[in-house]
Amino acid sequence: MDETATQQQVIAVAARARAASIELAPLARGVKDRALLAMADALLAARADVLAANREDVAAGRSDGMAEQLLDRLALTEDRVAAMADGLRQLAALPDPVGEVVRGFVRPNGLQLSQVRVPLGVLAMVYEARPNVTVDAAGLAIKSGNCALLRGSASAIRSNRVLVSVLSEAAAKSGLPADCIQLVPGTDRSSVGHLLRARGLVDVVIPRGGAGLISYVVENSSVPVIETGIGNVHIYVDASADLAMAEEIVLNAKLSRPSVCNTAESLLVHRDVAAEFVPRIAAALREGGVQVHGDDAFAAEPGAAPATEEDWAREYLGLEIAARVVDSADEAIEHIRRWSTGHTEAIVTRNLETARRFVAQIDAAAVVVNASTRFVDGSEFGFGAEIGISTQKLHARGPMGLAELTSTKWVVYGDGQVR
Amino acid sequence: MDETATQQQVIAVAARARAASIELAPLARGVKDRALLAMADALLAARADVLAANREDVAAGRSDGMAEQLLDRLALTEDRVAAMADGLRQLAALPDPVGEVVRGFVRPNGLQLSQVRVPLGVLAMVYEARPNVTVDAAGLAIKSGNCALLRGSASAIRSNRVLVSVLSEAAAKSGLPADCIQLVPGTDRSSVGHLLRARGLVDVVIPRGGAGLISYVVENSSVPVIETGIGNVHIYVDASADLAMAEEIVLNAKLSRPSVCNTAESLLVHRDVAAEFVPRIAAALREGGVQVHGDDAFAAEPGAAPATEEDWAREYLGLEIAARVVDSADEAIEHIRRWSTGHTEAIVTRNLETARRFVAQIDAAAVVVNASTRFVDGSEFGFGAEIGISTQKLHARGPMGLAELTSTKWVVYGDGQVR
Repeated sequence: MDETATQQQVIAVAARARAASIELAPLARGVKDRALLAMADALLAARADVLAANREDVAAGRSDGMAEQLLDRLALTEDRVAAMADGLRQLAALPDPVGEVVRGFVRPNGLQLSQVRVPLGVLAMVYEARPNVTVDAAGLAIKSGNCALLRGSASAIRSNRVLVSVLSEAAAKSGLPADCIQLVPGTDRSSVGHLLRARGLVDVVIPRGGAGLISYVVENSSVPVIETGIGNVHIYVDASADLAMAEEIVLNAKLSRPSVCNTAESLLVHRDVAAEFVPRIAAALREGGVQVHGDDAFAAEPGAAPATEEDWAREYLGLEIAARVVDSADEAIEHIRRWSTGHTEAIVTRNLETARRFVAQIDAAAVVVNASTRFVDGSEFGFGAEIGISTQKLHARGPMGLAELTSTKWVVYGDGQVR
Repeated sequence: MDETATQQQVIAVAARARAASIELAPLARGVKDRALLAMADALLAARADVLAANREDVAAGRSDGMAEQLLDRLALTEDRVAAMADGLRQLAALPDPVGEVVRGFVRPNGLQLSQVRVPLGVLAMVYEARPNVTVDAAGLAIKSGNCALLRGSASAIRSNRVLVSVLSEAAAKSGLPADCIQLVPGTDRSSVGHLLRARGLVDVVIPRGGAGLISYVVENSSVPVIETGIGNVHIYVDASADLAMAEEIVLNAKLSRPSVCNTAESLLVHRDVAAEFVPRIAAALREGGVQVHGDDAFAAEPGAAPATEEDWAREYLGLEIAARVVDSADEAIEHIRRWSTGHTEAIVTRNLETARRFVAQIDAAAVVVNASTRFVDGSEFGFGAEIGISTQKLHARGPMGLAELTSTKWVVYGDGQVR
């Protein structure tokens, strides 16, 4: 497909989404919820087709030499399809963010103001591998009254084609505009590029994937972007920490699911407890299969390797961790300030003043005191659904649920006021 | 100044702002308010210097052939300086947005969550002509705990240099970091370009000025942008309108201050009241010195000119208005959807259903029923201060006060919870 043809196709898809968004925005919750339930039913009914397409994607990935870890993310099973359908049902049960009055007041001149949540309009998602994002994003978009433009990776294209066709057909049968869920044509970066320049048609682009994808989107987009997900997550174990609690938190944060963005990637230990805690946590991590990249104190432990400058910056997303000893809470804060990606940072401490200082001085989407970093997640926060975790400061920061997929509109009622 | 030197200087200024922002963010309200009052005092004390520098700017502008309207915006007087100082005092009296708990709850597992307002960090303002923006933006930034990078126009450079030097000196004497208010070096677009690429140092860029400036910033920025201000504001006079009210609202919205973004630029009149209202409003507008660019009905009035396609898109910001007759409220909504810039749109009606439909179907930062569009303004909304009116959907939409200059941070307290 030549460049101009791709561009025209991407613009055409976006223009149809824009038109559909005008029909979708005012629909009442009941209509949207019925559509979500119908989409869940349709997904289950079509699971044979979905799984067949997915097997082709997996086979193609395998013959292209895709890594096992990525193949696992790509592969669907009966259970995974059922979980995607469940996700849609759960969305139907959540309150509608649209129409919520965020603020409202009467001015001295009698003008009545209310700031009301409204859909953003057209959301574009650019993401890698996992086909469940296709279903999650479509569901979240519809519940929040937005049209979804979905641009998954080339490796999942067969799965995504079937999923989008099943979902959009079910949505249309339930009275939603047929173009409210669309796949963006093209499988190379140029089609993403056209999407990123579609100002006026696309309201926001949300990239989900590795650092390369996210920085490509940020650097090339004139459409507003919400950055998600890069997490170089630190845990600082203070001199006053309950060391049993610290051990449990570190192990949970590293081992419970090492491939996700809220997993711990760096460990900082106060010098006063290093003699006891360094060997203890190093042994436990080793037992969990974790490779430690340490400073002198940690590198002296069995199996540990010396950390390079690069290790402090790494988001391993696997069974590795960087670890060092610090002289003070202030040194820990300095280290985190230097290397943080602004996702989640944690402290384990019993000292009130240290906890408060850490919370005040660390600049991140979430600061956690005495708990696992793995709780920084939309469903753990009680949002019921999550489109990603924003690591930027504008619009949304931290786990993004339905409210974060809306804008607001000021509605002003008067009876003839003039200035 | 060569290109690389400019770039290095812009980056150096931004890096100093970033460092200062870490000191500024945690300062208590009392410290910031004392600094704002000291800045107000310093401004008044230095007014002779400010006015002298401004006279040089005005003289240079005049000899460069600057339009009278722009010269008027550039020129400062004793009164205008006093008003800028008053603005700083008013900011000191407003509540501090930083630290406000936006949401807070306890999860079933006992985790305590609160979403707390925090400063964005470093705000860059890129603006044209008016030197009062320098003082307003510096004050708003400091009150909200942010450092300000100010990039005014070349024509106001002498005024801005004196203003920034007076303000930053007063801030530093009051215990704020000296680099919390800085002028961005350079007076051509390349220095703006470097600012727009300073990701990691600058948190948000807010352009204030004409459409050309705003689109340059949007197209070239990898730093997040908040778009402000372009307002092709419509007023629709419905068949059921109180025509005396409609006349008063149209005249107020067009005449009370034609150069600002919330002034009316287009008038739509329902056919059922056209025979009475078109001659009446055309005469009143003519009397107010307003040039009407009309459809057939309006163009037939004395002094009116026929509208071209371009007129429906124009933001005149002066004594001109586009005007046409529509067959229905739906046609008015269609017209507005096509030409709206998403700023403010208004209806005059007595029909409840029409009012509700207009509010639901118009996609703009503010929708006004039976009042002048001129109320869409930070101080009229009771925000006490305003940095601009956002016409984008992300982060902030409509008048932006102090809260809109903040981000949030999730603070999570536990007692050892793991997943």
